[in-house]
Amino acid sequence: MSKAEFIAVSQPLPAPAQGEPFLLTPGPLTTSLATKQAMLRDWGSWDGEFNQVTAEIRRELVAMAGVADDSYVCVPLQGSGTFAVEAALAAAVPRDGKALVLMNGAYGKRARQTLDYLGRAHVSLDKGDYLPPQPEEVDQLLREHPEVTTVFLVHCETSSGILNPLREIAAVVKAHGKLLMVDAMSSFGAVPLTVDEIPFDILVSSANKCIEGIPGFGFVIARRDLLEASQGRFHSLSLDLFEQWQYMERSGQWRFTPPTHSVVAFRSALEQHRAEGGVAGRLARYSRNRDVLVAGMRALGFRTLLEDRWLSPIITTFFCPEHPNFEFKRFYDELKQRQFIIYPGKLTLAESFRIGHIGQIDEGIVHQLLRAIADSLAAMQVDIRRPAA
Amino acid sequence: MSKAEFIAVSQPLPAPAQGEPFLLTPGPLTTSLATKQAMLRDWGSWDGEFNQVTAEIRRELVAMAGVADDSYVCVPLQGSGTFAVEAALAAAVPRDGKALVLMNGAYGKRARQTLDYLGRAHVSLDKGDYLPPQPEEVDQLLREHPEVTTVFLVHCETSSGILNPLREIAAVVKAHGKLLMVDAMSSFGAVPLTVDEIPFDILVSSANKCIEGIPGFGFVIARRDLLEASQGRFHSLSLDLFEQWQYMERSGQWRFTPPTHSVVAFRSALEQHRAEGGVAGRLARYSRNRDVLVAGMRALGFRTLLEDRWLSPIITTFFCPEHPNFEFKRFYDELKQRQFIIYPGKLTLAESFRIGHIGQIDEGIVHQLLRAIADSLAAMQVDIRRPAA
Repeated sequence: MSKAEFIAVSQPLPAPAQGEPFLLTPGPLTTSLATKQAMLRDWGSWDGEFNQVTAEIRRELVAMAGVADDSYVCVPLQGSGTFAVEAALAAAVPRDGKALVLMNGAYGKRARQTLDYLGRAHVSLDKGDYLPPQPEEVDQLLREHPEVTTVFLVHCETSSGILNPLREIAAVVKAHGKLLMVDAMSSFGAVPLTVDEIPFDILVSSANKCIEGIPGFGFVIARRDLLEASQGRFHSLSLDLFEQWQYMERSGQWRFTPPTHSVVAFRSALEQHRAEGGVAGRLARYSRNRDVLVAGMRALGFRTLLEDRWLSPIITTFFCPEHPNFEFKRFYDELKQRQFIIYPGKLTLAESFRIGHIGQIDEGIVHQLLRAIADSLAAMQVDIRRPAA
Repeated sequence: MSKAEFIAVSQPLPAPAQGEPFLLTPGPLTTSLATKQAMLRDWGSWDGEFNQVTAEIRRELVAMAGVADDSYVCVPLQGSGTFAVEAALAAAVPRDGKALVLMNGAYGKRARQTLDYLGRAHVSLDKGDYLPPQPEEVDQLLREHPEVTTVFLVHCETSSGILNPLREIAAVVKAHGKLLMVDAMSSFGAVPLTVDEIPFDILVSSANKCIEGIPGFGFVIARRDLLEASQGRFHSLSLDLFEQWQYMERSGQWRFTPPTHSVVAFRSALEQHRAEGGVAGRLARYSRNRDVLVAGMRALGFRTLLEDRWLSPIITTFFCPEHPNFEFKRFYDELKQRQFIIYPGKLTLAESFRIGHIGQIDEGIVHQLLRAIADSLAAMQVDIRRPAA
């Protein structure tokens, strides 16, 4: 794609075609037209040209993690992000190892469930729906369980929208000499996560999150020596990350049929990510989206689940208002009619919903969304604004 | 897509855009523009509209297998076809069961390797590179191994291109009262495979084969009672077909992020499949492609690996000519310059290459290919035509 083409599709962000709604979800999300247009060609999965695309993507993702040498490698894997997390857990926790799983939402719980499938021992810290695991708690648990080999943390837990204190926890994990696995599914590419600041051993993310690609594969960025040690640890042919890596190194190809169109779209998405100023540029746009959204929602009378210091630039959870006319299903449908798709909540104790700020969404679109929300509330005859003092 | 649009893009088959090569491979393959254009929209994976697409695809695939009641169900699964085969093997072979794996190529071998990962017992019949497993051999093995619970057969083994004698083997398997698992990856949608003729218990195929979709997911069609019995048999969270099925039944959604664009493209591909006359229409086109290809290649002096009775309508293996100037890499590059991508061979004993006849390829394109092959041979100064008698 030429620079001119990119500019044409990326600024100002156009409304999706033909009444297509904006996806204000944690992914799949609204992608650029250029990214989708990259899929208008078929690629031979065995051909050298496609291998070059794969190699380019792998290199760029390692560089995005701040790695300047060959001490880390990137291995993409077919399937959703969960497939890549499962493969990475099998790599990161030796068969006779033990994981400490830090949980404050659905994705921490899913990791624990995966370890049960894998037959790996684990202990966990369950903070409930949204409270952040604290470095002191991790320190205490690692003192109590010196047999732990690997600590697992979700960076941005999208079930609440919290950005967990990764840097502080990473320091504790490393002080104990343990392996650190980060589920950076919904943060990588928009929240800085580089090896100089966060000494992770293995990290997982996916094509269709902050790099704004098309779903079809996830990717793992891991220390080379960790991956080398993982041979024989895997429970699944398809999810054998070691073999996937080795095959790719030898042949340049994916071991089994890759999602070719998604891979090529991802290369286009990476070009656009770079043109926007990389991680810093994306963080700025998403943060601005969040700030406009949260201020506007509060002005309408909504309350956020989290205090400001824990709000991520990825997605925000709002409580459902207690107004008798408010019903989430109706609210969802009203907003969808107005071309916005929001996301249901995942809290166990309170009615809530979530609004994502990632994807091809900018401040202007958030303002449109806020008007649509005000109109939807009016249509439902819900007024939750607090009276002026 | 309106009917008029479909006709506009499907007849006559247009050359791919911008010098894009035709993929004469067993998939990913050359798809129609309409199929790719279906990906120019983003879909919320949680939204009702997308759920309808998933439901429609599941219904149509079960119907394609000739099932008129609710005794079989279709469960799509993220990842390449191999992921779906692995999940289906875990479903089809109880933990204390035993598989008989019929092998005559790479995909039979891969199934055996998968069973090793799964920790399932197995016996196998290895016919080498291309000889078909015979019904009498299967009968004999099932007499010798009454403890076998499940027989696994690849329908079209694309490593040689052979169409295995599925109907005859199915009859033997059922006479012994065993479960039959069919890897119909590269045949389903183009070779008739219906429950009235082939009493299979579980079958696997993929989006990017004869239905001519985009890679991103595979699918399993299984007897409902087999799937019901499979709960707790799975070794992997991501590949737990029982949970995938149950979640889809309950919610209409995929359990983890689906490859939304690939799914929607597949719906378009199914519409085009129907418009072409379904399985019969596709079989007719692919068979014609093969007949024109094989006749033309023989006229150029090439020899097929298999006798005519074993040739599939999917892909054909040709021996590399023994001419001193013939080198596969050069031949591949010459053809690629002429806009055709062919596929390397997979035989252990002889140099060979393969040419697929599936995807958006018709007789006219095969004639173009034959001219390109003749030109490539001339460029390489390879003349293998036999002298006239």
